[in-house]
Amino acid sequence: MSSLSYLPTHWDKQVPANPVVAVCGATGAVGREMLLCLEQRAFPASNVRAFASARSAGTQLPYGGAGGSADGQLTVEELTEASFDGVDIALFSAGGSISQQFAPAAVKAGCIIIDNSSAFRMEDNVPLVVPEVNPEDAFAHRGVIANPNCSTIQMVVALAPLQGLCPLKRVVVSTYQAASGAGAKGMTELVEQTRAVLDGREYPPQAFTHQIAFNCIPQIDVILDDGVWKEEWKMVVETQKIMHAPDLAVQATCVRVPVLRCHSEAVIVEFNTAAGKPAPTLEDCRAALKTFPGIIVDDDPAAQRYPTPAELAGTDKTYVGRLRVDRTVPSGIAMWVVADQLRKGAALNTVQIAELLL
Amino acid sequence: MSSLSYLPTHWDKQVPANPVVAVCGATGAVGREMLLCLEQRAFPASNVRAFASARSAGTQLPYGGAGGSADGQLTVEELTEASFDGVDIALFSAGGSISQQFAPAAVKAGCIIIDNSSAFRMEDNVPLVVPEVNPEDAFAHRGVIANPNCSTIQMVVALAPLQGLCPLKRVVVSTYQAASGAGAKGMTELVEQTRAVLDGREYPPQAFTHQIAFNCIPQIDVILDDGVWKEEWKMVVETQKIMHAPDLAVQATCVRVPVLRCHSEAVIVEFNTAAGKPAPTLEDCRAALKTFPGIIVDDDPAAQRYPTPAELAGTDKTYVGRLRVDRTVPSGIAMWVVADQLRKGAALNTVQIAELLL
Repeated sequence: MSSLSYLPTHWDKQVPANPVVAVCGATGAVGREMLLCLEQRAFPASNVRAFASARSAGTQLPYGGAGGSADGQLTVEELTEASFDGVDIALFSAGGSISQQFAPAAVKAGCIIIDNSSAFRMEDNVPLVVPEVNPEDAFAHRGVIANPNCSTIQMVVALAPLQGLCPLKRVVVSTYQAASGAGAKGMTELVEQTRAVLDGREYPPQAFTHQIAFNCIPQIDVILDDGVWKEEWKMVVETQKIMHAPDLAVQATCVRVPVLRCHSEAVIVEFNTAAGKPAPTLEDCRAALKTFPGIIVDDDPAAQRYPTPAELAGTDKTYVGRLRVDRTVPSGIAMWVVADQLRKGAALNTVQIAELLL
Repeated sequence: MSSLSYLPTHWDKQVPANPVVAVCGATGAVGREMLLCLEQRAFPASNVRAFASARSAGTQLPYGGAGGSADGQLTVEELTEASFDGVDIALFSAGGSISQQFAPAAVKAGCIIIDNSSAFRMEDNVPLVVPEVNPEDAFAHRGVIANPNCSTIQMVVALAPLQGLCPLKRVVVSTYQAASGAGAKGMTELVEQTRAVLDGREYPPQAFTHQIAFNCIPQIDVILDDGVWKEEWKMVVETQKIMHAPDLAVQATCVRVPVLRCHSEAVIVEFNTAAGKPAPTLEDCRAALKTFPGIIVDDDPAAQRYPTPAELAGTDKTYVGRLRVDRTVPSGIAMWVVADQLRKGAALNTVQIAELLL
């Protein structure tokens, strides 16, 4: 994809040890979670500012971390091109068009953007980073770093330790994606529509294309030419970019399910032993997953232990279970991967990228 | 698997044009649906009887079809070994142990069993039948015909027309299975536990191993030695038996989702072109699916048309959408398959088998 022409060829400015941090889109589900992550992880900000649309300006948001005010509240300010003066790092989660609109002004002001939208992810001169997987890519940034798609992040965290054992050939993934991927309005629609269905009332879909209560919707994002949703395409190209594996084949089916905020994924991995590395055993894979940062292996099916999305809301790790050999290929395994969409899938990963820059 | 030694070597008795039909397990979710299917399809029974445990004897069940009583009610009788005298066809859905307990007496009485449990499916001398796929197998029965597992039935209906174009090599399936697969108690638990979660009340899981409300549970049935659930194993061996394809590779991940009564499946199909048949195009596949009995293709993603489980409750067909080429293999397609678990996945398929025998 063509580069962003307004980016400098090199980014020379050092991030100070106690940076000024802006959260843009602070009133959204991910924006609020970003503030929570900054606070919980004791991010050493000298100042934290919350930006959103004019409509939300004046809203009070809780924030009790470093760089906040004594009363534990931040007052939301309107996002304008002048907002970035003195800001060192801006965490964006206000939608792709807002990111595109404000990125030039931010970069010009010397502010590094870590963007949670899909606007810049596939740009050549924008690193796409999952800190456990490709932290080194972050340091080649030129003012903009992209946070991957939520369903991609948790999958690549689980794939990376396997790729360390043996190159991957093909991945087949089916997702079970939570309502939070459609923002706070998606979560509200799931809850309120579920109440309505139980009470026998109508509740026409708005955040989703079909009823989400007690349903599965095999559509996420918009359709591309070949019958594939953009969400499915993202899981292919973003995975290839993050893992530096342009030939890795990824076949994805993305489905919305009536779950609040954790995505689950059934992932089938086929190893490429043609390059000379021996086929990993299931125990090799289990050991590699267990020792990889950010992963918790929860896998004892005989004791009915496996990750489930409702039980992991609010957690920070990527949970892996249901590890088993795929006997239908020469060398492969199957697994079940769960992570909180608002945390590891969005806000947490963005804050982790900011931590890399310190 | 070893044969059932009590079966005769040939079944000579003809089924009369207006048979006496028994529904065993009539008070369960599938049993009630069997009565509904018999009535709705105007099954030409001369008499319909409803059997269940002693505890349920005396219960009145609605049945307004042929062979019922003038008041549109059937009185449930206790199932005993003497129940089968004069019965021509018994539809069983009372669990595997009940099927195993009563099959010898039924067969001895000259009654053909069509069994919805997993007790007999893989027995050598028991046909496993999906009427759209392998109707001819039914006629080789020796007193017992098995109804396949619900998740298998809808998948093989969608696979059969593709197999007609070109032999299948490998299938990867991830299921999104409804609460009805755990019976009426599973459906009740989903509804009541969802109310409880919305109200902030506790509702410990009983029908399922974990909370099903707003959750996905990657466990269906019991665990086998290699980390695979028995439900996943069923999808492999039953598919191979029904499709007469012992070498077909099937990799399954079975997951319970908070949906009431339709199963959904993300199915990835790889063709085996080594045998000489040309690789089917996507349009070949679409045409074959469209003209196959029992399938409705609902596939216009640009218009947000695809099957969803909540919208198909109570329907009889197998719905296929999200048809697209799988570009990660030399020749393959992906699809999304939805059917009502209580209808095509259980009661309807059983009644369709009975219709074959007339």
